Amino acid sequence: MSGMMQIWQLGEQGLLQRLQRFCPPDIIGDDAAVLSFPPQQSLVVTSDTLVDGVHFSPQTTAPEDAGWRAVAANLSDLAAMGAEPLAITVSLALPRETEVAWVEALYGGMAACLERFATPLVGGDVCRSQQAVIAITAFGSVMRPIYRHQAQVGDAIAVTGPHGAARAGLELLLQDGQWRDLDPQIRQNFICAHQRPLPRLDLLAPLKQLGVERLAGMDSSDGLADAVLQLARASGVKAQLWGDRLPMPAGLSQMVDSDQARDWLLWGGEDFELVLCLAPEAAERLSQVVEGVSIIGEIVAGQGAVLQLGDRLETLAMDSGFCHF
Amino acid sequence: MSGMMQIWQLGEQGLLQRLQRFCPPDIIGDDAAVLSFPPQQSLVVTSDTLVDGVHFSPQTTAPEDAGWRAVAANLSDLAAMGAEPLAITVSLALPRETEVAWVEALYGGMAACLERFATPLVGGDVCRSQQAVIAITAFGSVMRPIYRHQAQVGDAIAVTGPHGAARAGLELLLQDGQWRDLDPQIRQNFICAHQRPLPRLDLLAPLKQLGVERLAGMDSSDGLADAVLQLARASGVKAQLWGDRLPMPAGLSQMVDSDQARDWLLWGGEDFELVLCLAPEAAERLSQVVEGVSIIGEIVAGQGAVLQLGDRLETLAMDSGFCHF
Repeated sequence: MSGMMQIWQLGEQGLLQRLQRFCPPDIIGDDAAVLSFPPQQSLVVTSDTLVDGVHFSPQTTAPEDAGWRAVAANLSDLAAMGAEPLAITVSLALPRETEVAWVEALYGGMAACLERFATPLVGGDVCRSQQAVIAITAFGSVMRPIYRHQAQVGDAIAVTGPHGAARAGLELLLQDGQWRDLDPQIRQNFICAHQRPLPRLDLLAPLKQLGVERLAGMDSSDGLADAVLQLARASGVKAQLWGDRLPMPAGLSQMVDSDQARDWLLWGGEDFELVLCLAPEAAERLSQVVEGVSIIGEIVAGQGAVLQLGDRLETLAMDSGFCHF
Repeated sequence: MSGMMQIWQLGEQGLLQRLQRFCPPDIIGDDAAVLSFPPQQSLVVTSDTLVDGVHFSPQTTAPEDAGWRAVAANLSDLAAMGAEPLAITVSLALPRETEVAWVEALYGGMAACLERFATPLVGGDVCRSQQAVIAITAFGSVMRPIYRHQAQVGDAIAVTGPHGAARAGLELLLQDGQWRDLDPQIRQNFICAHQRPLPRLDLLAPLKQLGVERLAGMDSSDGLADAVLQLARASGVKAQLWGDRLPMPAGLSQMVDSDQARDWLLWGGEDFELVLCLAPEAAERLSQVVEGVSIIGEIVAGQGAVLQLGDRLETLAMDSGFCHF
């Protein structure tokens, strides 16, 4: 990689000038960005930080993909709240030896995801560090927010798509060669699920059109089981998942046995789907209107979450999740 | 420091629980914070990142002060845009050996500054890194934004207070002992200017009350001369500062000679005052209403910025500023 320009050679102003072409030209050059805000809506704000070696690594993540995923994770949090995105800001802390091409590829990936969801990058800053840290803040607007605490006994638990595919994609990248015989299309789907996840902002319009009166929801970025547990805890209810209705991705059974597949599905994380609790009729209507939506369980009285496997009930416990420290 | 608890001992959830007491209780626990937004205003967003060893260091900055300054810098950017603050979010990347007491002191300093300006901390996240990075995003609302590009020939250049005090405070902390005979009150004022700067949100009400029709402005976080140059460049005009009207802090002449004092005043940075370009009558009225506001120069035809020292004109050049790489 010698011969490629590093950011200290450009200097802060030179780097910022290169990055400004990813921003709309009219918002550049003041102490802060000014954005028009839709009337009678609330502001929704979410932040997410990615650290080199923790959330992405050269082995599994090209800079374009790191950028895409960072944006997708933030937009997914907005979708989880029922909010339409307005804009994002990006704060970058970078080692001075970072290659300019790497930073531009990172921004290219962010811009690609932002463009898909018609959302501008409106600011941020760049400073020096020993390790690359990408802190993104996304903001959106919402008329009626979707909270976690509004699940009720009798609700159906619906998900917007399969789970475990992102984890399968990660494993394929980490252990290249172990699954040589896997169908190339399935391989591609799993890797794409990991590298280019799509936040489910497309659900907002049908939820509005169906006039769903009350629902609880969040995204499944930390895993399906984690989302179900969080929803149950916030609402003071119990979630019961049906083992024969778990949203298994096509082809996962070709990679691993059923126990491993269920583990990835429940705890793999980073699928960025929505998990919703709502009246069974509303869930049914939603599943008819939006492809991929399925009902995977129900809310009952009690606490925590269980998985029904035939006659057996397996308790889902929180401590299987990812801890940052 | 052995025996003090480190953040890996608490874990991510334990740490987040400790930090949540700095947030309003009603906004906790969803994927994003929801905030009501004042009608018919625009959203203003600004981000700022602080890196351990670059923007703060154990020698000069207690964690309380690092927290205060990080918040003050962001609120100052809002003030520069004419915006009232709504909320901030904080993203922390921390080494796992970081002491819990340090993080709580950091948040304590942030909370103290936020409380002074009645602004809530509404979210953020925490993750692991090799070096502490604090990324803050601040949100505000504004009816009529203050931009940099609206200075006109004939405008007065006004500042809201003295400059160079923060730099003097930093030097006192770095070179303890060099100025033993300095008046203790002056010492205290300079150190306080460095450690606990106050964003000039108090200017927004008088600017509104005076009905100032048009003005250009920004804050002086990167230095007074830098602000003047940025305003001139953005507006396509020339700034002329009067050497005998430079806003010198009381007592600076007791510390250093006049050349050094002028250098700190012009280029020291981090004073977080506002630099405004507006009609001379409006500037005059403002200086009568708000203590500390003074007129230090004028906008003329041309480009760049000069400092008038007696009969001599000295050119102010951009490259004296701080570069992050």
